[in-house]
Amino acid sequence: MRAQKLFPLILVLLLMMTPLSSARTDASHGANEGRTGQLSAGKATELPAHSSRHHTDHHTGRLTLMPLPNGPVVPGEGRFRIDEHFTLAVEGAPDARIYPESTRMLRRLAGRTGLFLPQGFIREDTEVDSPSMLVRVNRPGRLELHEDESYRLHVTSERILLEADTDLGALHGFETLLQLLDADAEGYFVPTIEIHDEPRFTWRGLMIDAARHFMPVDVIKRNLDGMAAVKLNVFHWHLTEDQGFRVESTTYPLLHEKGSDGEYYTQEEIRDIIRYADQRGIRVVPEFDIPGHATSWLVGHPELASLPGPYEIERGFGIFDPTLDPTSEEVYGFLDVFLGEMAALFPDDFMHIGGDEVTGRHWDENPDIQQFMRDNNIPDNQALQAYFNSRVMEILKGHGKIMVGWEEILHPDLPQNIVIQSWYGRQSMIDAARQGYQSILSHGYYIDLIQPTDLHYVNNPLPPDTPLSPDEQKLILGGEAPMWSEYVSWETVDSRIWPRTAAIAEVFWSVDVPAINLPSGREWFIPEDLLTQEIIIQLDEMYRRLQVIRIQLEEHGLTHDRNYPVMLRRLAGGEDISAVKTFVNVVEPVKIYNRPRQRTHTSYSPLTRTVDAARPDAMVARQFRRLVDDYLAGGATDRQMAAEIREQLLVWRDNHGELVQVIRRSPILSEIETLSEDLARLSATGVEALDNIREAQRPHPDWQQEAMSVVEAAREPRGQVEIMIVPAVEKLVRAAGS
Amino acid sequence: MRAQKLFPLILVLLLMMTPLSSARTDASHGANEGRTGQLSAGKATELPAHSSRHHTDHHTGRLTLMPLPNGPVVPGEGRFRIDEHFTLAVEGAPDARIYPESTRMLRRLAGRTGLFLPQGFIREDTEVDSPSMLVRVNRPGRLELHEDESYRLHVTSERILLEADTDLGALHGFETLLQLLDADAEGYFVPTIEIHDEPRFTWRGLMIDAARHFMPVDVIKRNLDGMAAVKLNVFHWHLTEDQGFRVESTTYPLLHEKGSDGEYYTQEEIRDIIRYADQRGIRVVPEFDIPGHATSWLVGHPELASLPGPYEIERGFGIFDPTLDPTSEEVYGFLDVFLGEMAALFPDDFMHIGGDEVTGRHWDENPDIQQFMRDNNIPDNQALQAYFNSRVMEILKGHGKIMVGWEEILHPDLPQNIVIQSWYGRQSMIDAARQGYQSILSHGYYIDLIQPTDLHYVNNPLPPDTPLSPDEQKLILGGEAPMWSEYVSWETVDSRIWPRTAAIAEVFWSVDVPAINLPSGREWFIPEDLLTQEIIIQLDEMYRRLQVIRIQLEEHGLTHDRNYPVMLRRLAGGEDISAVKTFVNVVEPVKIYNRPRQRTHTSYSPLTRTVDAARPDAMVARQFRRLVDDYLAGGATDRQMAAEIREQLLVWRDNHGELVQVIRRSPILSEIETLSEDLARLSATGVEALDNIREAQRPHPDWQQEAMSVVEAAREPRGQVEIMIVPAVEKLVRAAGS
Repeated sequence: MRAQKLFPLILVLLLMMTPLSSARTDASHGANEGRTGQLSAGKATELPAHSSRHHTDHHTGRLTLMPLPNGPVVPGEGRFRIDEHFTLAVEGAPDARIYPESTRMLRRLAGRTGLFLPQGFIREDTEVDSPSMLVRVNRPGRLELHEDESYRLHVTSERILLEADTDLGALHGFETLLQLLDADAEGYFVPTIEIHDEPRFTWRGLMIDAARHFMPVDVIKRNLDGMAAVKLNVFHWHLTEDQGFRVESTTYPLLHEKGSDGEYYTQEEIRDIIRYADQRGIRVVPEFDIPGHATSWLVGHPELASLPGPYEIERGFGIFDPTLDPTSEEVYGFLDVFLGEMAALFPDDFMHIGGDEVTGRHWDENPDIQQFMRDNNIPDNQALQAYFNSRVMEILKGHGKIMVGWEEILHPDLPQNIVIQSWYGRQSMIDAARQGYQSILSHGYYIDLIQPTDLHYVNNPLPPDTPLSPDEQKLILGGEAPMWSEYVSWETVDSRIWPRTAAIAEVFWSVDVPAINLPSGREWFIPEDLLTQEIIIQLDEMYRRLQVIRIQLEEHGLTHDRNYPVMLRRLAGGEDISAVKTFVNVVEPVKIYNRPRQRTHTSYSPLTRTVDAARPDAMVARQFRRLVDDYLAGGATDRQMAAEIREQLLVWRDNHGELVQVIRRSPILSEIETLSEDLARLSATGVEALDNIREAQRPHPDWQQEAMSVVEAAREPRGQVEIMIVPAVEKLVRAAGS
Repeated sequence: MRAQKLFPLILVLLLMMTPLSSARTDASHGANEGRTGQLSAGKATELPAHSSRHHTDHHTGRLTLMPLPNGPVVPGEGRFRIDEHFTLAVEGAPDARIYPESTRMLRRLAGRTGLFLPQGFIREDTEVDSPSMLVRVNRPGRLELHEDESYRLHVTSERILLEADTDLGALHGFETLLQLLDADAEGYFVPTIEIHDEPRFTWRGLMIDAARHFMPVDVIKRNLDGMAAVKLNVFHWHLTEDQGFRVESTTYPLLHEKGSDGEYYTQEEIRDIIRYADQRGIRVVPEFDIPGHATSWLVGHPELASLPGPYEIERGFGIFDPTLDPTSEEVYGFLDVFLGEMAALFPDDFMHIGGDEVTGRHWDENPDIQQFMRDNNIPDNQALQAYFNSRVMEILKGHGKIMVGWEEILHPDLPQNIVIQSWYGRQSMIDAARQGYQSILSHGYYIDLIQPTDLHYVNNPLPPDTPLSPDEQKLILGGEAPMWSEYVSWETVDSRIWPRTAAIAEVFWSVDVPAINLPSGREWFIPEDLLTQEIIIQLDEMYRRLQVIRIQLEEHGLTHDRNYPVMLRRLAGGEDISAVKTFVNVVEPVKIYNRPRQRTHTSYSPLTRTVDAARPDAMVARQFRRLVDDYLAGGATDRQMAAEIREQLLVWRDNHGELVQVIRRSPILSEIETLSEDLARLSATGVEALDNIREAQRPHPDWQQEAMSVVEAAREPRGQVEIMIVPAVEKLVRAAGS
């Protein structure tokens, strides 16, 4: 855990490099323009910067790396110029993946700079005289736990040296180098610097549920590119669910033939994706969720079920009763063959068997299963599942695999050579470690729940005050962000993964933000009383970098920003999206599990509505909330801030009339009409509050009550979206009344 | 050729439905706002409308179908309401492709409307009581020449009836129905209407060159969706080139292993794409270009070459000398095995053997080949290639395939049962027909040459004054738009294909625009003296519909508009793209074959520069040119038009200062700095000219000369892009001086 020793050094370097500067927000997002921070020097008060992708901020000299290095960073004074003579050579004994990845690095460098670089394809036999960049690797990297992924990047004004024990480290160095790429009026350069870097955790994952909504191969590949860009190294592929069985099986073809509506990965596609991931230094851990979440298995194989069939592919979402029969030897025989087939297909040491959310109802209803439990002294369904898991574990062991499962598999009957994925609460991670199990943390990283980035970012698996002993801490392998797919399609899934997962990747790689113990982990905002000034500074800096990285991530074809105007054009019924965009910019989908509570979806319901176009962590709303906070924290005296707040509120107040015209032509928007009206009222109320504050007038006693009723009305979601500036206007109203 | 009889009827209907109306241009594109047409009633003078995707213009009642039906259209007065009870049933004896396509139609309908439609998956055994829409099909459609693709769509306020002899016709009816989808304040509807429709030509193709730059499977699939949306039915897949051999061969694996840099389609991927295309009613015609354009074959198999190797994959672009040896029996043995393998893989009746651009130099240099020619009385290289082609034709015949080739294969030694693809000039199509060959026209549809849509649109294969007899006309099977890929990547290719190919599809399906005989077919604009008022009306109407269809096409993931802001963000180095967008909106890539003349590219040169972000047929520039034309045609008296012209010119004049700031941070833009400066000067000159015109002042005699020198300077491309408003400003300058 070198991180905890080194991080303060990095932080100090960063803060030394961070004089107070002005920041500009993107004009197209609203009215927040060119504001100068008002708090005392040394505090980073600016809004997240939108206006530059460049890797040092030209006013402050800050590096824009994400994840931040987990080791010493020594910046120099010089610049290594990147021009059309740039060449690269690889030395040493790397795995062959380094060659296509070197080539890909050159192509990305050329793409960003427009330079016609001289080298086409880097191969093992490529020879270069005096290369601009030398990559030196000791040995081939193995895609396994605790492999060395460290690298040392040494940039002088003369050349770039990237050294690593394994090619896996070198790949991380490539990403750091591309993030360091910068420019001035003379051209492109990399600042002289020395970076020693290595990951904090060995398991840094993204899970994609390709089962509830199928995710085509290109979706997976572009997300693997994005993962590599932020140094994630485990792709956890959730492949089977009640709603679909997404793997071709040659041993039991009825699985995919009857269980997938024709939407599954062929084995050739799977091998292709594994190869693609391997080349990027990413392990692929498949998940076959059993014994619950398994309806789709039973469509072709009802004989495996706890109750007689027939079964159909589930079209709804939730927790369902169909379950494999844990008392049937036929089931274990089947699993032995099927998982053996999968074990040969997926080379990773680990295999995930799900194990979550088993209702046990079909066990209760089957007298034979009840008899089996009595006969074998199995006291309850938990113990029955543990029996099932121990049998499955033996099967996996026979095929050379280590079992991973969701926290429900944690049971005293299971040996310690399994890995527990903690999801429902962080306590399961702590319990697992204390009982000697290795674990990975997913609780707090559920990106499908549409929480803001900072909530995930303060979720430190091992904060300084962790109750775990140093030996227990070693059992925490890392973490994973799960992307469940009830409410996403190929068109929207990237916007739920990125850019937030880049910040989560930083937690896994390096960051040691003092953790915040959230009351439930299911908050929508970090409660303000838990935010210290130090954390605020770190969060602002994280958001600043995130807004740069999000644009870089687009080069992989990721659609988190790319599809936004496309979806707005469809909603608006034409090319002029201004009114719709003004509205959708300040709303977010409802969070946690509120979407299905407000409207029942099936797997074929449309995912093209306002709620789908709206994105997590709406930046325009965040900036506005930040602006109001700063304004009020400064005693509401800053005229420029007040003017900006007013201007923005007027835009929202006046948007409704224009939006109504669009809604008349585009009934798909009807569901948000009253919400748009409430946004207008809320903004008008905000203006009144602001004017009262500015003129230091005490409003009429009735005013505040009426104003608060406007605020309350605006809080109510419609169309499963909610207005994200409600808290800021509420603060203005309260301030006006005090 | 029913088209020629029926089209006048449609045109009359359309024009009856087209009262003069105002049109709005997209505010985000510039300053052209809310202009009312000034010409006399009955002329469609408005700019292409950007502001609505809806399928009837709410002011004019015009249908927005593309391609226009090629048969009677009888609109009614009523509306069939689409709501959450909408159901669909299929009757008759269709091919099974109708079921997934019906399902896909429902999902697209749900996606556009946000309606939670009740049906999940339509299957053969799906039963529906009183369906909202009944699809009735007589027999399975076969993917072959001259198959019946007609349909009849009958919408009453009670229900929708779609009848077709084959499912292929029904699929076209689905697309028409989705284009008819409209909305009012009460919700979505389809107008009552009766349409009888069938294609004018049986071969309506798009060719994609996946060899010079590899195009991943998802690029192909989304373009197949786009093709189906505009009723194209032939995907011509250019699979081999000097720069890459893109098909997995099991018989000769060295072909793809050595010839592709690892970028090729596996046979499973090819089967998957053929299945995907089949489901959409699209034939897949593969091309294996021989004997020239074949360097990549020779990397693994130098023994096939006309001169000894070794050979390497070609990285440059152009016409190269490496050629198969037409005198070698080993070559024919090889081709028999390889093309046999491909004949089994690709089910279509036709196979394309390229045959273009054989330099013959390696034949000249090989004494054995020269001896062979003497021995066999082969007088020249054309005759030698004809000998080669006749041998290949026999091989293909043996595998049950009909040979297609580029026009160079036309030679008296070849029998008539081959198909000639006319590319270099339309004369080859005429010659072919007169000699009894079937042919398809590609000359005039080269979408890689970045010409404007209207140039392609007036390229009628069989205009009323065609010199061909009725029997000869029957030999013209149709046409194909070729997308060569020297200068496109996965990121940009869609923007060269769409939306222009939708207009070309209309030419193949229905339109009988009086053709314009362009002097060379390589113009950049239609010469104004060739434009009649009737054609102008048709072109305006085409552009109006095209701007609606381009947005609908995005639902398939097509990136023609989607990637534009993404590429601008990369160029601008951040999220604020306003200055870059203002500039790139009025430039286009240089046309025809000027790009390589101005800068040498390789297959790994970056395709991320201004020239790559810029799109063909820049709409902002086209609208401005149209505005200036209308203003001057009206005697330069319209004050509102003048104000709009002035406002737009001021935006361009003042953009340069802002853009320079961006260029300082983003050197990738340096190459267009002087062009941006020239745009500013040009626009300032335009303002001066306009002010002179408005004030009816005669400018100083020196002014016009100076102004014209500014115009001339602005005409010169830089960074391989050119300013597209030069002709309009030139007209203003000339008008000011007269």
